[in-house]
Amino acid sequence: MRGIPDRADTRNPATHRADTFGPNGKNQPLAKQRATRSVGCDGRAGELSCRSQKLMLQAGLIHPASPGCYHYLPPTVRAMEKLIRVMDEEMQAVGGQKVNMPSLSSAELWHASGRWNKMGTELFRLEDRHGKEYCLGPTHEEAVTELVAAHSNLSYKQLPLRLYQITRKFRDEPKPRFGLLRSREFYMKDMYTFDTSEEAARQTYKLVCDAYCSLFDRLGLPFVKVQAATGNIGGTMSHEFQLPADVGEDRLVLCPDGHFAANVEMLNGERTSCPTCGEKLIQTRGIEVGHTFYLGTKYSSISNAVFCSPENKPQLAEMGCYGLGVTRILAASIEVLSTEDNIRWPSLITPYQLCFIPPKRGSKEEEEGAALLDRLYNDLAEVLPHLAGDSVLDDRTQLTIGKRLKDANKLGYPYVIVAGKRVCEDPSVFEVWNQNAGEVLFLTKEGVIELLSKAQVP
Amino acid sequence: MRGIPDRADTRNPATHRADTFGPNGKNQPLAKQRATRSVGCDGRAGELSCRSQKLMLQAGLIHPASPGCYHYLPPTVRAMEKLIRVMDEEMQAVGGQKVNMPSLSSAELWHASGRWNKMGTELFRLEDRHGKEYCLGPTHEEAVTELVAAHSNLSYKQLPLRLYQITRKFRDEPKPRFGLLRSREFYMKDMYTFDTSEEAARQTYKLVCDAYCSLFDRLGLPFVKVQAATGNIGGTMSHEFQLPADVGEDRLVLCPDGHFAANVEMLNGERTSCPTCGEKLIQTRGIEVGHTFYLGTKYSSISNAVFCSPENKPQLAEMGCYGLGVTRILAASIEVLSTEDNIRWPSLITPYQLCFIPPKRGSKEEEEGAALLDRLYNDLAEVLPHLAGDSVLDDRTQLTIGKRLKDANKLGYPYVIVAGKRVCEDPSVFEVWNQNAGEVLFLTKEGVIELLSKAQVP
Repeated sequence: MRGIPDRADTRNPATHRADTFGPNGKNQPLAKQRATRSVGCDGRAGELSCRSQKLMLQAGLIHPASPGCYHYLPPTVRAMEKLIRVMDEEMQAVGGQKVNMPSLSSAELWHASGRWNKMGTELFRLEDRHGKEYCLGPTHEEAVTELVAAHSNLSYKQLPLRLYQITRKFRDEPKPRFGLLRSREFYMKDMYTFDTSEEAARQTYKLVCDAYCSLFDRLGLPFVKVQAATGNIGGTMSHEFQLPADVGEDRLVLCPDGHFAANVEMLNGERTSCPTCGEKLIQTRGIEVGHTFYLGTKYSSISNAVFCSPENKPQLAEMGCYGLGVTRILAASIEVLSTEDNIRWPSLITPYQLCFIPPKRGSKEEEEGAALLDRLYNDLAEVLPHLAGDSVLDDRTQLTIGKRLKDANKLGYPYVIVAGKRVCEDPSVFEVWNQNAGEVLFLTKEGVIELLSKAQVP
Repeated sequence: MRGIPDRADTRNPATHRADTFGPNGKNQPLAKQRATRSVGCDGRAGELSCRSQKLMLQAGLIHPASPGCYHYLPPTVRAMEKLIRVMDEEMQAVGGQKVNMPSLSSAELWHASGRWNKMGTELFRLEDRHGKEYCLGPTHEEAVTELVAAHSNLSYKQLPLRLYQITRKFRDEPKPRFGLLRSREFYMKDMYTFDTSEEAARQTYKLVCDAYCSLFDRLGLPFVKVQAATGNIGGTMSHEFQLPADVGEDRLVLCPDGHFAANVEMLNGERTSCPTCGEKLIQTRGIEVGHTFYLGTKYSSISNAVFCSPENKPQLAEMGCYGLGVTRILAASIEVLSTEDNIRWPSLITPYQLCFIPPKRGSKEEEEGAALLDRLYNDLAEVLPHLAGDSVLDDRTQLTIGKRLKDANKLGYPYVIVAGKRVCEDPSVFEVWNQNAGEVLFLTKEGVIELLSKAQVP
């Protein structure tokens, strides 16, 4: 892992100083917070294969551990936690209850569903000290159905039941690649729903699909919802949520008027025109970031997951399952929003909202500029405490402002506040880089605070 | 998993109605929220072995999946997320940066440290599709040291580095038992620190130990910090944080005047009197909830984790590692705080702060009482929105108030608000059960809101 060439100049301000302007530091003067800590990055040139992987390695967001397994470094963990919060909101808005199921999943469960053999080499398999077989769950239809089946006194009044978890999943990919886009360990949000009838289950299906649309809308990600094949999971209806991107591994066909959209996998043979309006279909590639399945009773019939009907009869629950790739959405967002050199995040999930850059060491603004930036930060912390806790100080003052600004651009902070040449004017003027708007503003302290108050930063 | 006898009467209001009064429901009238959803519980009489396990199964907080592996049901996930928030605060207050390392840990790393053999059957081991060997990380000294070693341009200015994660860990326990106290999958907070000198590392050690004390103080848990053996992890100094409890698996000796405290494991032979004051030592048992190790260069020398000294020479980092059992603290809290029948939580991490109990169906207070409780909830949501989002409505109105109150006691909501006989008085009077104080108050709507405003509920 060591001795790799192209690493030296990729130090990462966010990770260096993640603790510098933390939520706990807001009452401390900047001068006392000048710790420099680092988990940098590692770019293995031979393996770089897409924009998000390259940018995430360069920026020190991830670090390879073994093929398809990555350490998530501090900014990634922050972004992931923000994304999880948005997912929690959306899932709870549709009645989702959060659970957490074990990773170790007993072979018996998978034999019963027939997937122990069907899943082949994609399942990581292991034995415990007593020789009992397990797999590491890549998905949890069997486990959750067994859990619900164990509640044998479930009444129709208690349905719909919508259980979800956001946990680490495992898949022994034949060729892990593209960083977090196709890794062997990844985080997934998976929801499993149980309804009293096909009609109710189809309503649930629509509700969850709408929540997915809302999630991607809130993230500002261009997505398409396409008809999809049901594959190993099974069921009779399935959709994928795809982010169009050249690096995407799925081939999609889309009606230009929005009447039809499908993954070509699910089509019988080639289709070139829209089945509704006859328009010529557009071909594109996509990154699958969500997948929904209407399962019917496929799993409930195996585990006998029943509820008590109004007529007091046991009846099989109608199921659906719904996945969202957590780490994949992070990487896919970077893939589709970033420029070649600079990461851009959905603003809801950017690791930090602000980066502060004090003057260079030895410059004539050094002391006064640092103090003024300090004061700006403190005032900001009073008015917008949440934002202050979402800030980084790039105190690598041995580097020029230009070099640090370039790094800040790479990391994709939405706002970069620089104590530059004009900081010693009266009143002092800060340079504010609004990265998403691509503009630089010269603002007084009050101006900065006003801008950020209005910016409706999440 | 099905067909187990003593399960029928253990329905759990918290999970039934977790979504009823959710953060998203605060503006909706109660009448529209009467969904009843359930993940109940499963008490396998033969396996019950300690209070927390029995209570958690009965209350529907956990459900067994396979030996030593549990599903965490909605209230447990809520409590766990609250506990994680407190841990994040404490770790970030001592400069901790949050990372997330893979579960799959390559055998090579463990061979290099000698622990591939030393850990024996406690390691879950597996091979990937290419026959490459891995274990499922029970702890991450090797992985994190390799991560830091890969940053070969680390300067002394960037230390101390304090990295932590809160993730699922795996240990193939010979006899998993006591529910979440000794399971095969569990959540752990593990921090790894890197310092420039032994002195600096000892300062870090003290700082993190103090953070642990602060955490247990904030949770209101009676704990002792004892000298401990270093075991498989190694190093030269170690302490455990123990909650005294009969069910604890560790034997401790304590000086009654606080001069000495140790796990008997680490003593050479029997010790009956305090080495400092000579007082007779008290013997007790404890549940280990935290463990700290001063590691020195044991791991950094294996991975060559070096930093660049002020003299520009590579120098081995001095390390420490620090664990807190997340799921174990949850269960241990319940173990030491609860009565035989009723769960009591540290108030910082109780799954819900409030439970609302409307009148019984068919009672003369039914309609008016439900409406008044509804109004109380809405007013509360306006004044104390955070608290309103931390509430449950027990709308199983087919049950008497007494039965539901008993269930609420079992679950351990700090406050239970009942629309009882006096709700139709003018002004209406609610029964408020303050579980921790063990008192019942009869209060008007304004009185309830005043009580809860003053209660400084977290």
